[in-house]
Amino acid sequence: MRLGDLGEFALIRRIARESVVAGAHVVKGIGDDCSVTTCRGNLLRLVTTDLLIERVHFLRDGVTPRQLGAKALAVNLSDIAAMGGVAGDAYVCLALPDDLTVEYVEEMYRGMKGTAAAFSVNVLGGDTTGSKADLVISVTVTGEVERAAVLYRSGARPGDRIYLSGPVGDSGAGLDALLTRRGGGEVDELVRRHLEPIPHLVQGRVIAASRLGHAMIDVSDGVAIDLSHICEESGVGAIVHEDTLPISPELAAYSRHFGLDPTSFALGGGEDYVLLLTGEDSLGSVAATAGVRLFEIGRIIEEPRMLLRRADGSASPLEPRGWDHFKKTDPLR
Amino acid sequence: MRLGDLGEFALIRRIARESVVAGAHVVKGIGDDCSVTTCRGNLLRLVTTDLLIERVHFLRDGVTPRQLGAKALAVNLSDIAAMGGVAGDAYVCLALPDDLTVEYVEEMYRGMKGTAAAFSVNVLGGDTTGSKADLVISVTVTGEVERAAVLYRSGARPGDRIYLSGPVGDSGAGLDALLTRRGGGEVDELVRRHLEPIPHLVQGRVIAASRLGHAMIDVSDGVAIDLSHICEESGVGAIVHEDTLPISPELAAYSRHFGLDPTSFALGGGEDYVLLLTGEDSLGSVAATAGVRLFEIGRIIEEPRMLLRRADGSASPLEPRGWDHFKKTDPLR
Repeated sequence: MRLGDLGEFALIRRIARESVVAGAHVVKGIGDDCSVTTCRGNLLRLVTTDLLIERVHFLRDGVTPRQLGAKALAVNLSDIAAMGGVAGDAYVCLALPDDLTVEYVEEMYRGMKGTAAAFSVNVLGGDTTGSKADLVISVTVTGEVERAAVLYRSGARPGDRIYLSGPVGDSGAGLDALLTRRGGGEVDELVRRHLEPIPHLVQGRVIAASRLGHAMIDVSDGVAIDLSHICEESGVGAIVHEDTLPISPELAAYSRHFGLDPTSFALGGGEDYVLLLTGEDSLGSVAATAGVRLFEIGRIIEEPRMLLRRADGSASPLEPRGWDHFKKTDPLR
Repeated sequence: MRLGDLGEFALIRRIARESVVAGAHVVKGIGDDCSVTTCRGNLLRLVTTDLLIERVHFLRDGVTPRQLGAKALAVNLSDIAAMGGVAGDAYVCLALPDDLTVEYVEEMYRGMKGTAAAFSVNVLGGDTTGSKADLVISVTVTGEVERAAVLYRSGARPGDRIYLSGPVGDSGAGLDALLTRRGGGEVDELVRRHLEPIPHLVQGRVIAASRLGHAMIDVSDGVAIDLSHICEESGVGAIVHEDTLPISPELAAYSRHFGLDPTSFALGGGEDYVLLLTGEDSLGSVAATAGVRLFEIGRIIEEPRMLLRRADGSASPLEPRGWDHFKKTDPLR
């Protein structure tokens, strides 16, 4: 069996999951945005780690080195945000192909340092080595969160409201514009949102401090898939109201311009790196008093299935799929 | 300037060093085997991270997947050992090319889990993704060490004895045998020592607990280079006595058999993953009572240069070079 065969990757992820060997201090070893271990007193320690591989996660001519460095750190910080945590230290490993220039590497580090400074993160050790083919960036970030404030994917309860901490679909539309080489007034901004995501660390802390949230994840795979993670881990279902999805003016304009469905981007486009969460009815207004706007998009239900309710009152199953799959199911495309 | 040009990698390492942004809790951000931050009470937190890239660090047909998985974890555990620390949790990221089989990945994890179990390390989260060309393994390991026991590269003092926690040169000779396709009675064992290094975590703890050590590093690049790191960071020099270098019977036989110089392997061969340390005169006997044998190989001197004293009493400069460079200076080869 070769990994290239369909479905093999799911098997590999199962093997990785089964390879977890956890000790008594481990609160969560796998299956959330970060691993969680006991730290000191009432604090928990968070660790998250990600690999970015050229030609799998990025094309070198589709992103500037500064954007690449910044994004490599930002996506890990987003995992800390998704637990309600405070980010601590970052460890960066680079495998650099021979044809890269010194200036390219300097720019990558500039991007990383800029993001680190913006979120008071320390960039500490790491490893720099050669690569025969692709550029590889591996970032590990640590963080901390109070035991009473940590938010897992598994905490959603029937009756919870479902919230987003920002608009969704922009990043997916930006990627779509890059891949289809579409231009236009709003395209630059969408592409920028795809290439320069901002981790919602401040929003995550406000939500955690409110003690009114029950479950949280960051939107990396898309609202539909990431909401399905919350539902699965919590043993619940969800109803999402299409007309409440936060669509940016740029995504609305792009969709209108090219005859596309903004809901597909909003539910299926990944890499928005906003927070998707569930919690009490009062969470939205409490967060607002702390300056964080939450968009309510639906409700958690007891029955373990996901539904999309349209503006006309009709409802259809909400499949946990990415934008690419939403697109493929549209017979007109 | 392209990275492939000679010397560019040194520049990159400088850029990486300058990119360190450290906060108040950071004891050591870069320049040692692990980064060191304050943890709780008298404990310090250690973090080390490494990238293993196919065709740079290993050839897929030169190592079994089980050995590869075990070694990827072992070399990081060796970094924890070099600080005198206790290993904690491991985070593993894999980028897997399409032509890999599921069985290969299972074997890699088996190797990793075996080493993890042997040293009571928890394998927690991580990331599994695809790769267009090379297999990439990224491992991050955390650890802890008492503030009074931690050993840095920078602690060596004039008059210190220099010790090794095991024989050196075996791994380099094993790699030499692999590259030259040499066979023979002792070759299998040398190759095994190259492919299956054992981190000296127990030895590191005994040395740290004795409070008689002053500086420590693990032998990854070779004794000559790693000793130069201790000398540079400590602002001292060293004299190494050639006839006291611990040479295994297998390395002696291999060198005799093929007319090679065992001292070159001992000083220049890397990846032995034993500990190289300096400390008090009594350290060797105190460690021995705890069951850890240390080999005394020389003395730290005030003058910042390294010397090799031969059995006949003559001395020559000890250059911080790897085995390959030692070899090249031999005009008969």
